[in-house]
Amino acid sequence: MSAPVRAALVAVGDELLSGAIADANSAWIARALGRVGLAVESVEVASDDEPTVAAAVVRALERAELVTVTGGLGPTLDDVTRHGIARALALELVEDEGAVAELAAWFAQRGVVMSDTNRRQALFPRGATILRNRAGTAPGFRVERAGRAVLALPGPPRELTVVWNDEVEPWLRARGWGREPIPERRFYLFGIPESRFAERVGPWMAREAEPRMGCTVRDGVLTATLRAGGRDAAAIATLEGRAAEFRARFAAEIYSESEWELERALGEALIASATKVTLAESCTGGLAAALLTGVPGISAVLAQAFVTYADAAKETALAVPRELLARHGAVSREVVEAMALGAARATGARLALAVTGIAGPSGGTPEKPVGLVWFASAFDGEVVSLERRFPPSDRELVRRWAARTALFLGWKRLADAGLARPRRSD
Amino acid sequence: MSAPVRAALVAVGDELLSGAIADANSAWIARALGRVGLAVESVEVASDDEPTVAAAVVRALERAELVTVTGGLGPTLDDVTRHGIARALALELVEDEGAVAELAAWFAQRGVVMSDTNRRQALFPRGATILRNRAGTAPGFRVERAGRAVLALPGPPRELTVVWNDEVEPWLRARGWGREPIPERRFYLFGIPESRFAERVGPWMAREAEPRMGCTVRDGVLTATLRAGGRDAAAIATLEGRAAEFRARFAAEIYSESEWELERALGEALIASATKVTLAESCTGGLAAALLTGVPGISAVLAQAFVTYADAAKETALAVPRELLARHGAVSREVVEAMALGAARATGARLALAVTGIAGPSGGTPEKPVGLVWFASAFDGEVVSLERRFPPSDRELVRRWAARTALFLGWKRLADAGLARPRRSD
Repeated sequence: MSAPVRAALVAVGDELLSGAIADANSAWIARALGRVGLAVESVEVASDDEPTVAAAVVRALERAELVTVTGGLGPTLDDVTRHGIARALALELVEDEGAVAELAAWFAQRGVVMSDTNRRQALFPRGATILRNRAGTAPGFRVERAGRAVLALPGPPRELTVVWNDEVEPWLRARGWGREPIPERRFYLFGIPESRFAERVGPWMAREAEPRMGCTVRDGVLTATLRAGGRDAAAIATLEGRAAEFRARFAAEIYSESEWELERALGEALIASATKVTLAESCTGGLAAALLTGVPGISAVLAQAFVTYADAAKETALAVPRELLARHGAVSREVVEAMALGAARATGARLALAVTGIAGPSGGTPEKPVGLVWFASAFDGEVVSLERRFPPSDRELVRRWAARTALFLGWKRLADAGLARPRRSD
Repeated sequence: MSAPVRAALVAVGDELLSGAIADANSAWIARALGRVGLAVESVEVASDDEPTVAAAVVRALERAELVTVTGGLGPTLDDVTRHGIARALALELVEDEGAVAELAAWFAQRGVVMSDTNRRQALFPRGATILRNRAGTAPGFRVERAGRAVLALPGPPRELTVVWNDEVEPWLRARGWGREPIPERRFYLFGIPESRFAERVGPWMAREAEPRMGCTVRDGVLTATLRAGGRDAAAIATLEGRAAEFRARFAAEIYSESEWELERALGEALIASATKVTLAESCTGGLAAALLTGVPGISAVLAQAFVTYADAAKETALAVPRELLARHGAVSREVVEAMALGAARATGARLALAVTGIAGPSGGTPEKPVGLVWFASAFDGEVVSLERRFPPSDRELVRRWAARTALFLGWKRLADAGLARPRRSD
């Protein structure tokens, strides 16, 4: 077996170095490479400066056989990626007539006149292969030399995806650089802090353990990865044994083995079981509904949801009795249960999820501090509620965490009723 | 004036190289450094491997006076940042008794027993200064040597923020590394494609222009930055002159000069003008409401919002006449206008924003393709509507774009009524 092909990623853009936007493209490319078994050796961010881009490309070529350079291919004069790559490889830039014609056609199709600045997008290092871009005006390109390759890819995420799928992935496989990934198992858990998790896995997470375990936490979701020691049958059997132990130990927390998105796990279980659902949100203000309606096909089971911020809205839209609000306050077990039951009644949904809390920054009291959130799930008319106190950090964090907690409670109700189970990746 | 201090950022984590999560911390640190005038020279991502972290730190120290290493300080055995930095600087790791005591107190306060793995978090390179972490269990640390400094910072974004504000920023200023940033003006525009923008700015975006202009696009928002040629009065006057020209040329598109978040521009204008608002969303499923309710204090003007996915929900919640739905379909000018007017009537809000469209992936027809979205804004009972056809790409992109378009329409109505104007950064 030949040595594994290494990849080095370069992301270009002053906006990445200034922090105006985060580099999400490199993560996307890393996942795409991982799927065909290529490991990313390094990621480097370079400014919109021709010599800097050139130097980053030279460094990347020292580390890896495959170099991707993302961004800086647009029509504006601060887009210097094509110049930087040409300089790194000591190639001149030449205008490609075919690319000019394609650009002209793209604009004509949309009834827009092509500008002179757009013509820059038809410049390529001599000898480059053009990577067509069906989603935009900036084609990418590929230059191969001495067994190594540099790919220039557009920065807008949608265009990157299209060019990758059309032009890069097929070429990687044809080139023989795509191979089988190291087998791994991934688990997505909700509602367990990292230090508690570390205690419960104990030596499974030691550096020398086989399979090797890693974990990350984001928005209350803990992702645990088990990676086999190799591709052989013994390593795979060891991996599967540990995966089975892991499943048993964390049965109450795992919601998926195939995807991070809790809303997908819930949404797909709802659709598969034809369970009608609704939501009644106060402090999350539509965030849980926005997450759940991101799942394709959800309209089959979700007809309506409620954002009831004010007490009066809870009364009129959800029929929460005024005296409950007056006696217990909007952030209370009594009110959140009435919200869930009211939403279920108003829509005829079998499952209703309700959230009410204090997202901050103001509005907290000693008894009801910022970060206090009440949740309820009504399923077949039976209501379950619980209280969570999130660290009083920023408003968005409390809201995101609360929205996911509501979705997890919905998932648990479905799982307890036998209508949901963690989906496996194979 | 001494030469500017350079910073090099290292982000540690297999999850960043595999693409499981994107590196948002580096963008955050870059912004924090930019505020005190430090420029980021490079960003590099390193795996959870001691020699790799050590090599990245060595490279970073060759490029910059200030090196930050983020992530990999947690309690689990795959957290190797402290070991990597110690190796890079040839220092041994020693347990700090004060840190052990603080850790123990942190756990005691939460009624939890400290685990042995948590004790790893009290290991530091000999001679390091500990950076206290009020938000979590992993303290950071700082090692200074020969005029250069390496900072180890926790990876969880909230902890990073707290440690930065408590321990890093004051030290930077005291150290004399924080200086005045190069003056710049930033503009946030909605609804203008990048190539059209490039045409309308023409030579303002040339590489040799002063002030230097850059632009980036995300979620339909175009951010244009004008950076002065220096810190002197003449350079600042040139900057302000160009900024005034820019303002006049793009008066219809600029919604802010201080923040990217369109929802904040709208939300703060609503709050300042005490304009009650509501939303009626179909294809965006609560996304516009979720964005707007992220603005602190919005509860003063937003009592209720509607997620009406199904036709029946549009009838019952918004009183959209059944015959309109039957005759024109849910994605039509007639229905979106009825949604906005119905939402305003149901809540008594002065401004109501409505969205209905086909987010995909299915549900499109030749006349009404995926990506077709209708918008309406009702203000003082007067309704304005418009149609947009987004590129039929992925569902999330259409939804995000549509939610922001709805918010921009609301902003325009307020601006036209003299109730909103782009906020300046000074």
